[in-house]
Amino acid sequence: MKNKMVSFLVLAAAAGVAQAQSSVSIYGNIDLGVSKKTGGTTVVGRRDNNRLGFRGTEELGDGLKALFQLEIRYDPDVGTIEGGSRPLFQGQSRVGLQGSFGTLRFGRGLTAFQDSSAAFDPWRGVPSTAGFQTDLTVAGYTSQPLDPAGSSANRWSNAVFYNSPEVNGAQINVTVASKEALGNSALIGRGTAAAPQYPANSPLKSNPYSVSATYKTGPYAAMLAAERNAAETKIWSVAGSAMASPALKLTASYQRQDQGATLARNPVTNAWVTGANYTMGAETFLFGYGQKQPDGVVKTKQVGLGWEHSLSARTYLYADAGNRKAATSVNFYGGGIFHRF
Amino acid sequence: MKNKMVSFLVLAAAAGVAQAQSSVSIYGNIDLGVSKKTGGTTVVGRRDNNRLGFRGTEELGDGLKALFQLEIRYDPDVGTIEGGSRPLFQGQSRVGLQGSFGTLRFGRGLTAFQDSSAAFDPWRGVPSTAGFQTDLTVAGYTSQPLDPAGSSANRWSNAVFYNSPEVNGAQINVTVASKEALGNSALIGRGTAAAPQYPANSPLKSNPYSVSATYKTGPYAAMLAAERNAAETKIWSVAGSAMASPALKLTASYQRQDQGATLARNPVTNAWVTGANYTMGAETFLFGYGQKQPDGVVKTKQVGLGWEHSLSARTYLYADAGNRKAATSVNFYGGGIFHRF
Amino acid sequence: MKNKMVSFLVLAAAAGVAQAQSSVSIYGNIDLGVSKKTGGTTVVGRRDNNRLGFRGTEELGDGLKALFQLEIRYDPDVGTIEGGSRPLFQGQSRVGLQGSFGTLRFGRGLTAFQDSSAAFDPWRGVPSTAGFQTDLTVAGYTSQPLDPAGSSANRWSNAVFYNSPEVNGAQINVTVASKEALGNSALIGRGTAAAPQYPANSPLKSNPYSVSATYKTGPYAAMLAAERNAAETKIWSVAGSAMASPALKLTASYQRQDQGATLARNPVTNAWVTGANYTMGAETFLFGYGQKQPDGVVKTKQVGLGWEHSLSARTYLYADAGNRKAATSVNFYGGGIFHRF
Repeated sequence: MKNKMVSFLVLAAAAGVAQAQSSVSIYGNIDLGVSKKTGGTTVVGRRDNNRLGFRGTEELGDGLKALFQLEIRYDPDVGTIEGGSRPLFQGQSRVGLQGSFGTLRFGRGLTAFQDSSAAFDPWRGVPSTAGFQTDLTVAGYTSQPLDPAGSSANRWSNAVFYNSPEVNGAQINVTVASKEALGNSALIGRGTAAAPQYPANSPLKSNPYSVSATYKTGPYAAMLAAERNAAETKIWSVAGSAMASPALKLTASYQRQDQGATLARNPVTNAWVTGANYTMGAETFLFGYGQKQPDGVVKTKQVGLGWEHSLSARTYLYADAGNRKAATSVNFYGGGIFHRF
Repeated sequence: MKNKMVSFLVLAAAAGVAQAQSSVSIYGNIDLGVSKKTGGTTVVGRRDNNRLGFRGTEELGDGLKALFQLEIRYDPDVGTIEGGSRPLFQGQSRVGLQGSFGTLRFGRGLTAFQDSSAAFDPWRGVPSTAGFQTDLTVAGYTSQPLDPAGSSANRWSNAVFYNSPEVNGAQINVTVASKEALGNSALIGRGTAAAPQYPANSPLKSNPYSVSATYKTGPYAAMLAAERNAAETKIWSVAGSAMASPALKLTASYQRQDQGATLARNPVTNAWVTGANYTMGAETFLFGYGQKQPDGVVKTKQVGLGWEHSLSARTYLYADAGNRKAATSVNFYGGGIFHRF
Repeated sequence: MKNKMVSFLVLAAAAGVAQAQSSVSIYGNIDLGVSKKTGGTTVVGRRDNNRLGFRGTEELGDGLKALFQLEIRYDPDVGTIEGGSRPLFQGQSRVGLQGSFGTLRFGRGLTAFQDSSAAFDPWRGVPSTAGFQTDLTVAGYTSQPLDPAGSSANRWSNAVFYNSPEVNGAQINVTVASKEALGNSALIGRGTAAAPQYPANSPLKSNPYSVSATYKTGPYAAMLAAERNAAETKIWSVAGSAMASPALKLTASYQRQDQGATLARNPVTNAWVTGANYTMGAETFLFGYGQKQPDGVVKTKQVGLGWEHSLSARTYLYADAGNRKAATSVNFYGGGIFHRF
């Protein structure tokens, strides 16, 4: 009994010291493996995104907290930052306050729609070629058409992020970006090469916004989301999930993109994705199927199969296989290791 | 009583373990808000510089210490390193020894003049548009005219930094840089476009040096400083501060830049800045007024007002307003959050 | 007695807390000094490579471990990542598993040959101008002729790394890289400017591989290694070391590079290096002599002398002097401080 009390005191004191020593937590993951596509060479590369981040929270009293997060994204196969040229803190760089009013942050991060949609994706938003997030789950939409070339497709810089508190399972998330020019290449759109609709480094005509509403009740979850980007392309999405049993999660989403602001013809793309995740002890099996139908262009049909074998709560091995058929049919095989730290 | 002793032992032991675990401290800050200038759009951006640093000291015995510091500077509104292209460790990268002789370091960091002057600036050196440090407090001087384009204006690479011990409130700081070429664009100066005074990637003609002497006694502090940069532009500055009451700090500085080495006409710029900081509980009020008079060019007059509201020792909200009048008059308004970690 | 038990418990608990708090260790070093070459200006720069790394291991049970390492390399004299343009994690970015089978990792890192050879170099692989590693110890060979311009010469991206367990002092290390194109400039080789042997951004014709075998017995160690790079240049090396007394380490290596795959004439380069390290209390003295003989080109002869004075287990001062004679003779002098953290 005495020892227990000592241990408890020790833990409390040690935790206190650790907090005093630093108010920063380092976290991240590294994921690498080997994969091959029809017609390509065997490559070493990632299945999931790779992160090295720094974050912290500070209690300010009365339930108010300050919080920040800086997240490096990198490509461990070649050692560079993600894509070789993205921002150092490509993942996010945000600071703000959290309280009974919700969470309010400034900076760069995933838009409300992109952030919420991953929970309804059969690969949990993992950008594996066998997965659906980066294309079908968002109907081919990009959140940042007026960012510099090579930027990622699902984040906003110069933005304000608001998340409401969760009330009876319901939450509202809103992201609004400023109209600042960010160094885009010219986007011709409804203009001409001589007079593009968005010249290089254009200030925006309106503030991009993104809204998602999520609702959870028992084994069910649902999302409604809408977003309008810097070039005034719009998307909306509806998605749901159900724990059919404690081991089986089913997901489905439908999304519709409207590029009418920049395309004179065939501006609409519809897409839907269904999926299942089944967990049995250390094994998880992933399945997904989806279609994307852009107006006047050949339909994309994609099927994916995945397997994850947990070595611990932080580390798993995985293998994926997939087929994607549009104008041509491409098979994909891959396997590797994921480690969280 | 027993519990107290246990706690004390625990704290001591935990501290020991923490030290053994790592000899590196992570520190930094993140500052973001919203601001607007006359004629510009509303932007999300920083008021202060943003840092993510790694530092440590090692006791070597007999009062001798080894010390190092590596400091990333970044722009959290867009997630990039500062300015998108500055060195990763733009803030500083230095290693050296500290002992009874003072502190001697090698590497990259603020020059002695730039480092000492911030204590006499009404915004504590914070580069807010409402503040004075980056222009008036240094009379428009740049420490690095032969660094690559896009470099910051107040640091030296390839330098040796010496700080004397503080003796009866007096301290001497000296920085000397090597003559290494650093990849500058051509600087025409007193030459011609065909034969610039400093061609691209020039080795320097002399070693840049910077010296500051500071003195503190009771509520008073003073600084004398002089610097000569890579293109042999010279500046000297005299500054003082007084705690008029425990809550009220008054500051004043005068500086004179001489660009005679590269400008054939009107080489001199004079500037002066006065300021006041008043703290009342969680609130701090900042005020500054200054002028810059370059030979033969219109005078700049600037006034700034600031407010900081502490949420904790590490976090505050702020708002700034300012007006800067030279050929045209520009107003500035901004507000946001600063969080130290 | 009671206090001791408390202390022990405290230490155990504190260690537990520390582990729970973070599974990442930060480590690195910073090395800077002043040096001068015949005909050059005095420069501030490094003697050793500079690292800031993040690493961790996770026990998975049954002797199995997951491990990762991400290592930034940087130039502290100017604050940039190494060379200004290398990958952020130039040092290495690897993840893998370790067990009774050895260690298997994916990612970017030193090749087996480059990694093993440093132990037989008189400067321990330190790339000081007075040292031998980056030229003579590898006979002028580069591991990455088809990497982007400005890459380092001794690492592979997109590779699989295997290290066997050490059995009776013997160990085998194997690195194999994928055939992925990495963005090289054109390499003319046996082709012509119009039709280079390796056009820009070429996929490789074969998988680069590197193998080293090391053996230790009592005071003796030996290495045999062979490697073939992306442009099918080959190198092999044999090296040995002996602790002639507990204070005196002697080293020798011989290596032969064959560039026959890309050079029509004089493809072979032979080199050898001998060295001695003598430690006396806090002082270590380094000596090296070597020659490199490329076919049909003037021989390089190099001699180096070094001194290291330990201030602690983590910090030392150093001075080097060297002469390198090929077509011309160049002297080198340098000194500085090394600090590990």
